[in-house]
Amino acid sequence: MRLLLISSSNVHGYGYLDHPEPAMREFLGAGRRVAFVPFALHDHAAYTAKVRERLGRMDLDVIPIDDLDHADAVFVGGGNTFRLLKTLYDRELLAPIRDRVRAGLPYLGASAGTVIAAPTMRTTNDMPIVEPPSFNALSLMTFQINAHYIDPDPQSTHKGETREERIREFLEENDVPVVGLREGSILRVEDGTTTLLGEKTARVFRRGAEPVEKAPGRIDV
Amino acid sequence: MRLLLISSSNVHGYGYLDHPEPAMREFLGAGRRVAFVPFALHDHAAYTAKVRERLGRMDLDVIPIDDLDHADAVFVGGGNTFRLLKTLYDRELLAPIRDRVRAGLPYLGASAGTVIAAPTMRTTNDMPIVEPPSFNALSLMTFQINAHYIDPDPQSTHKGETREERIREFLEENDVPVVGLREGSILRVEDGTTTLLGEKTARVFRRGAEPVEKAPGRIDV
Repeated sequence: MRLLLISSSNVHGYGYLDHPEPAMREFLGAGRRVAFVPFALHDHAAYTAKVRERLGRMDLDVIPIDDLDHADAVFVGGGNTFRLLKTLYDRELLAPIRDRVRAGLPYLGASAGTVIAAPTMRTTNDMPIVEPPSFNALSLMTFQINAHYIDPDPQSTHKGETREERIREFLEENDVPVVGLREGSILRVEDGTTTLLGEKTARVFRRGAEPVEKAPGRIDV
Repeated sequence: MRLLLISSSNVHGYGYLDHPEPAMREFLGAGRRVAFVPFALHDHAAYTAKVRERLGRMDLDVIPIDDLDHADAVFVGGGNTFRLLKTLYDRELLAPIRDRVRAGLPYLGASAGTVIAAPTMRTTNDMPIVEPPSFNALSLMTFQINAHYIDPDPQSTHKGETREERIREFLEENDVPVVGLREGSILRVEDGTTTLLGEKTARVFRRGAEPVEKAPGRIDV
C-alpha cells in the first residue's frame, strides 16, 4: 500500500500545491491519470477545474472518481472533512477507494483527504456542518492524523482549547495514536514504513504518555 | 422560556465563572438549586466538585441532573460538545431538559452548554472525539451559536480555515443564522427577546449576506 499524506495544500509563501509538488512527482513516478475527489468543497466543478489546471502543469491528467478503474492514482483534496466523508458515504465510494488502495493504487491526500485515510475522522479540526452516517473513514493506516497541527500561541489571551488540549480529549475517549502534522509536512506510508517529509518535526500523541517530537525521516507511530 | 447563554466560562484576566457571575445572579434571582450537567468533561465527579465549590460561593446549591424536578435552574457546563451531546442522548436526557426549559425552567449554558441550546451542534469548534447518534440538539431557539468566536489574526501565516470561513461553509450547507459570540459575551433569551450582554459586539452570519456586527443590547437574529 502506498500513501502520500499532505498536511496542507497551501503553505505560507507558496502557491496551491507548490510546496508538496516535488514529493508528489516522486511518489507518482510515471503515473499520469489521477482520479480526483472534490467533495470537501461545495462547488465540485470549480474545485475540479482548479485542480485540473494545477495538475496539468505537472503533466498529470485529472479523471473523474467514477473512473477509478482507469486511474494511476487517487487524490482526495482538502476542505471540510464532514462534507467530504458524508459525500463519500452518500455515493458509496468508501469501499471502492479502500479496496483499490489496499490493492496498490497510490493514494494522495491533502488536509481533509489526509485525515480520512485514518481509521476515523475523529481528529479533524473542521466544523460539523453536515452529518455523515458514521465517523469511520478509510482505515488505510492504524493511527490518526491531525492536519494543520499548530502549537499554542504563548501571546494568546483566547480561552478556547489549544490543538494539543483537543487531542488530549481525543485520547481520553480513544486509545489510538495521533500524529500532529504541521503545515509543510507530509507523511509517506509504504508497505508498513512511515516517513516524515519536510523540514518540521511532527508531534506524536499516545494515551498515557507525554507527546513526543519526531524528526523528519522514518518514524514509528 | 428563559436562557442565559455564556460564550466562555473562562475569560482572560478572570477566574472560573467570575466574569459572568453578575449576569448569572440577576438571571437566577431567588432560585437556589441548580441541576448541573458535567458531561462535556471526562471526569464528571471532579467537574461537579469544581462547580459545586464555585456556585457555593454564590450561595447556590448544585443538585444532580436526575433531580431536575427539584431544580430552580439547569446549568450545562463547557467542554467537548460531541461528548456532551452523546452523553445526553445515551442517558435519554435531551427530551426531559427540553420539556422543562420550554415549560419555564431557567437554562444556563457555558460554551458547549451554550452551543447545544441551538437546533443542532453543527457550529461547534470542538473535535469530534466521540460520535453522538445525531447532531440535533435542544432547539431552544431558532438560530445557531458559535461560542469563543474569534476574529482572524492578520499576523498569522497559518493556512487552516479562519472561524469566519468555517461559518461560511456552514451556511453553504444550512440556511440558519449563526451568532458568533466572543469570549466575555452572553446572550440572554427571554420570551422571544434576545439581548447581548457584555462589552463586545457579536458577529451575525446569514446565508446570502455579509456578516454584521451587533452592539450590546437587544438584537434581532
